[in-house]
Amino acid sequence: MFFSSKKWDPRGRHCFVTGGSSGAGLALAVLLVKRGAHVSIVARNEERLQAALAELEKHRQSGEQIIKSYSFAINSEAGSTAALQAASEPHGGRCPDAFFLCAGTSRPSFWIEQNEALMRSDLDASYGAQAFTALVASKEMVKQGVKGKLVFVSSVLGYFSIVGYSTYSPGKFALRGLAESLQSEFLLYDIDVHIAFPGTIYSPGYEAENKVKPKVTLKIEETDSGSTPEYVAECILKGVQKGRFHITVDFIGNVFRASTAGSSPRNSYITDLFYALVGYVALPIWRNSVDSTVRAHRQEHQEYLKQKGIIG
Amino acid sequence: MFFSSKKWDPRGRHCFVTGGSSGAGLALAVLLVKRGAHVSIVARNEERLQAALAELEKHRQSGEQIIKSYSFAINSEAGSTAALQAASEPHGGRCPDAFFLCAGTSRPSFWIEQNEALMRSDLDASYGAQAFTALVASKEMVKQGVKGKLVFVSSVLGYFSIVGYSTYSPGKFALRGLAESLQSEFLLYDIDVHIAFPGTIYSPGYEAENKVKPKVTLKIEETDSGSTPEYVAECILKGVQKGRFHITVDFIGNVFRASTAGSSPRNSYITDLFYALVGYVALPIWRNSVDSTVRAHRQEHQEYLKQKGIIG
Repeated sequence: MFFSSKKWDPRGRHCFVTGGSSGAGLALAVLLVKRGAHVSIVARNEERLQAALAELEKHRQSGEQIIKSYSFAINSEAGSTAALQAASEPHGGRCPDAFFLCAGTSRPSFWIEQNEALMRSDLDASYGAQAFTALVASKEMVKQGVKGKLVFVSSVLGYFSIVGYSTYSPGKFALRGLAESLQSEFLLYDIDVHIAFPGTIYSPGYEAENKVKPKVTLKIEETDSGSTPEYVAECILKGVQKGRFHITVDFIGNVFRASTAGSSPRNSYITDLFYALVGYVALPIWRNSVDSTVRAHRQEHQEYLKQKGIIG
Repeated sequence: MFFSSKKWDPRGRHCFVTGGSSGAGLALAVLLVKRGAHVSIVARNEERLQAALAELEKHRQSGEQIIKSYSFAINSEAGSTAALQAASEPHGGRCPDAFFLCAGTSRPSFWIEQNEALMRSDLDASYGAQAFTALVASKEMVKQGVKGKLVFVSSVLGYFSIVGYSTYSPGKFALRGLAESLQSEFLLYDIDVHIAFPGTIYSPGYEAENKVKPKVTLKIEETDSGSTPEYVAECILKGVQKGRFHITVDFIGNVFRASTAGSSPRNSYITDLFYALVGYVALPIWRNSVDSTVRAHRQEHQEYLKQKGIIG
């Protein structure tokens, strides 16, 4: 409805993947290499980038594919510009055809333990790391007349939020707002915008965040199931190929997508109505059970606050 | 369901209102003074604050009401802390009972004309100006054991977005994510969280933004109707008193609220189902007409880009 119905083929296209050295970013890069794309991965850690590049090389389909890695911190306009320039060079300065913005980390914690510096660095990690790349990518696509693609990666925590994500959900919600404004503006240029909302991804990032996650948040998530980075990558690529604006990877993602759609372009009017009705009945029940779990932690939390010296 | 059913009474309570020198913030402050609250208004411009304070004095109900104004820039933790400390002083250091976070401005513009500095300052204006006050307010309420209220003011542009709001909607969406995470966390403290999503408000801020608004955005909004600051203020106070989490002020706001509710606490299961069904049918039709308006501006936009030297 909002995109061409012709399936997008990554073969021979230049795909720029941020957060490309691990998790869903790396899995997407592997998938794109397998489909014959030129792939540039960007991440900070040079050692992990080299390991990721070796992995990508294993899946090379032809000697002509340009597969490269670039070490840049992209949570600034200057960093994103430098990464984009470096990645465009082997392509004669032409900017990539598709940008997969997978960069982002989460640091679950209680709101009352935050300060301005933590809030700003978390917002840079959850929002800035994708928004600044989107900015320089958009400018370059418009300047060069490239009718490309911007693919953001938000989270189901961009559809709802719970205790522990007060510095993460704002950035993931913000990505949704940005993608929706750009989906509208980019009708002026034929640039496609997509945004994915995966749930738990079994990745190095997930293991790192679980180490610092508040007990109450761990308890709420106790029964959650997750997906492998490979499965999430497949869903994202399939969603992009089908021209979907919001891309979700599992049943609960579909329920949240349909229940929060508003005026966002939908995937299907019939199945989305089904998911929306499921959400209308099930989500308030789920929310009540989450609220009960939070309330059951009041005593434990009071002790935590005393131990931390926050209350006397 | 999620809040006490006893109606909240501002009489004798200390209400802290940011963005309190004009628009909906000033109208809320007037309303709270009329209801017998102690009111502290915070804004940057000392001259406008003095005029606002004179206005508030006209509505004083008793000699005991403490009505004050404070000039601070609150888009930082330090600024918000200083404002809160100053406002708490006439109350013996006790922190306010309710925080009405009305600070915020919008600067409609095209995405491809942004840079990092503009993006950061717009995010500070749309998100930071409320988030940092919420941070220092939360810490103080928890420390002092005040079971108070946090009232954020987002926008219908926190439910959806269109061309022109790529640096505004992210902040207004981010406020929704923050409020939802805090609504969950604050069950640990009995602090209530509310968030309002007004549409167009006929205020000095609206007049200022229309002067810089892209033509295509003005065209889309041509048939919009708006509300007076006084009406919006009444809706917000009523919503807070009724214990509503999401507060909307008109029919279209209700439609967007119900159509994007997800697992957010609802206002009513019956009327929200009605609004959600209206949204399910009407919003995609509306979105299509907006998309047509954007596409109709392609020629005009190409000329704009050439004139600005963005394309050759």
